[in-house]
Amino acid sequence: MKQISDPEFPMATIKDVAKEAGVSIATASRVINNAPHTSDSAIVAVKEAMKKLGYRPNANARALVSKSSNAIGVLVNDVSAPFFGTMVKAIDTIASEQEKQLLIGSGYHDAVKERNAINLLINSRCESLVVHSKGMTDAELTTLANEIPGMVLINRIVPDIASRCIALDNRKGSYIATEHLIRNGHKHIGYICSGHDIEDARDRREGYLDALRDNGIEIREEYIEYGEPDETGGEQGMVNLMAKNTPITAVATYNDYMAAGCMTLLQENGIRIPEDMSVIGFDDGHIARYIYPRLTTIRYPIQVMANEAVKLSLQLVNNEEAERTEHKLFMPILVRRASVGNIK
Amino acid sequence: MKQISDPEFPMATIKDVAKEAGVSIATASRVINNAPHTSDSAIVAVKEAMKKLGYRPNANARALVSKSSNAIGVLVNDVSAPFFGTMVKAIDTIASEQEKQLLIGSGYHDAVKERNAINLLINSRCESLVVHSKGMTDAELTTLANEIPGMVLINRIVPDIASRCIALDNRKGSYIATEHLIRNGHKHIGYICSGHDIEDARDRREGYLDALRDNGIEIREEYIEYGEPDETGGEQGMVNLMAKNTPITAVATYNDYMAAGCMTLLQENGIRIPEDMSVIGFDDGHIARYIYPRLTTIRYPIQVMANEAVKLSLQLVNNEEAERTEHKLFMPILVRRASVGNIK
Repeated sequence: MKQISDPEFPMATIKDVAKEAGVSIATASRVINNAPHTSDSAIVAVKEAMKKLGYRPNANARALVSKSSNAIGVLVNDVSAPFFGTMVKAIDTIASEQEKQLLIGSGYHDAVKERNAINLLINSRCESLVVHSKGMTDAELTTLANEIPGMVLINRIVPDIASRCIALDNRKGSYIATEHLIRNGHKHIGYICSGHDIEDARDRREGYLDALRDNGIEIREEYIEYGEPDETGGEQGMVNLMAKNTPITAVATYNDYMAAGCMTLLQENGIRIPEDMSVIGFDDGHIARYIYPRLTTIRYPIQVMANEAVKLSLQLVNNEEAERTEHKLFMPILVRRASVGNIK
Repeated sequence: MKQISDPEFPMATIKDVAKEAGVSIATASRVINNAPHTSDSAIVAVKEAMKKLGYRPNANARALVSKSSNAIGVLVNDVSAPFFGTMVKAIDTIASEQEKQLLIGSGYHDAVKERNAINLLINSRCESLVVHSKGMTDAELTTLANEIPGMVLINRIVPDIASRCIALDNRKGSYIATEHLIRNGHKHIGYICSGHDIEDARDRREGYLDALRDNGIEIREEYIEYGEPDETGGEQGMVNLMAKNTPITAVATYNDYMAAGCMTLLQENGIRIPEDMSVIGFDDGHIARYIYPRLTTIRYPIQVMANEAVKLSLQLVNNEEAERTEHKLFMPILVRRASVGNIK
């Protein structure tokens, strides 16, 4: 046993198992693959030999024959961000039902890292791929998608492969958030934006600007701050807004983490939420329900979207008829909690 | 191109590439494998044929030859929990440096699910395995570890394979937390415990009890509540403690999420933290720095531990000399922030 598992010695093969069991290779194969017409004594002998030699049917060998592995590939930005944890878990739930496993790569919004991660997933023979890419170009993603029938994009729309794209209307979400503040009487509304140069950041900022314009409120660049899309970035953005001594009474944020950082800073400075300052988030992640006061935010239905993405990918792999030719755009909705006050 | 990627048609083989390029299979193979002695014209022709046919050298075939895949297997409880996200990211950082990819399985603290996930990882030829198992028995893990030289356990000590175990002194951590409350004058201290029947929960509860005993404080079962180790469980635990109308002035919790849920409930009921009630967490996860008031907690150095685990695993796979025969026990430390008050 020790000798077999030693990396200097080769792993046991089916030939070794057959020899150890005193049967033919064909018989050993039939036992291993649970085929009919095998005698009880052969089954016992082969199973004992497998155990003794530490023999495991080689999943890679099977994958080679069937030309696919049993894994679903997922590209995320950063697996340690709770948003992507939620996305990966939703995909894992479907994967488990299908007895498939996940291969996860992180692209960190960088074209080179995304490309390398996707290539590794493809070379590992993942036929199903759910890709969250922000760094690679539309053209490159289109080429890849044409090569890989089971590749689906999440949180991005690439026109040439629209039927394989699942996205959220980010602009609309931010519009809803800002309009909620306006309806509560706020006219001086700050915006804490992600400093990442990705379309989500641009779209959400545009939604904020649209809502101001549509309600006849003057746009002031000084009310907008940028930072890393996390708690530290939100805190820093609020520091900068406060330093400018503007008359803002409310802040819309790129996401819940930025909102949380912003709120902690406000509270440490004795500014009450929502009495003195209203704050609205985006995503409705886990954290939104457990910061105080509970965060009013915009729901990003990432679980539903991830479910849809992996199911679509599996359909494409199985060559089932595509149900649509357009991209699927999910709609964000307002979730009211306790962080927005009415100042009318 | 379209025809080749259609799943009804077989993927291109090296034979197809050779035919398309007008060269022998041996020449095509030399080009694909960057072997010497290939003419420039052959290189151009084969590379063009590869591109045209969408041919990719099969990573599974290579894995079969080299008898290992390029992946590191990781078993976690639940990839969507931020604690495991942090652990996975730490492993991913090392994996990327080594140009390896992660295969991740979720065991959900259940013996059957853990076993299935580990078997899938092994059958996918992960030679390196970092395993966070709470459901399987010591005996079963020992058998597996003997079979898989690169398997390392994190957050668990199995005596027979101690040199491959990396763990935290949970009992000590909880002791430090409770003693910190006692030193701040608290004598009536509640404990909100995980309801999961795992050693972490038992050890942390024991640490709380040890600290009370060592300081001559009476232990009262009514001061202890159990729940899911998340925000909802923490909130419910606090609801139950408050309902009993005990004179507690401080609460120690199983983890930061339970502390967060507990704090939100207290604040919604007008109970000030730390003036009216002190709260201490465990883990020092991301959330600890961004709930208000910022959470005093116990640091669980999961990143350092995950680094250590994956490096050990890679050493074992490469058959490098093991540096130690004992398990590695990491020490938790107190991180003071703003959620504990002094009532002396």
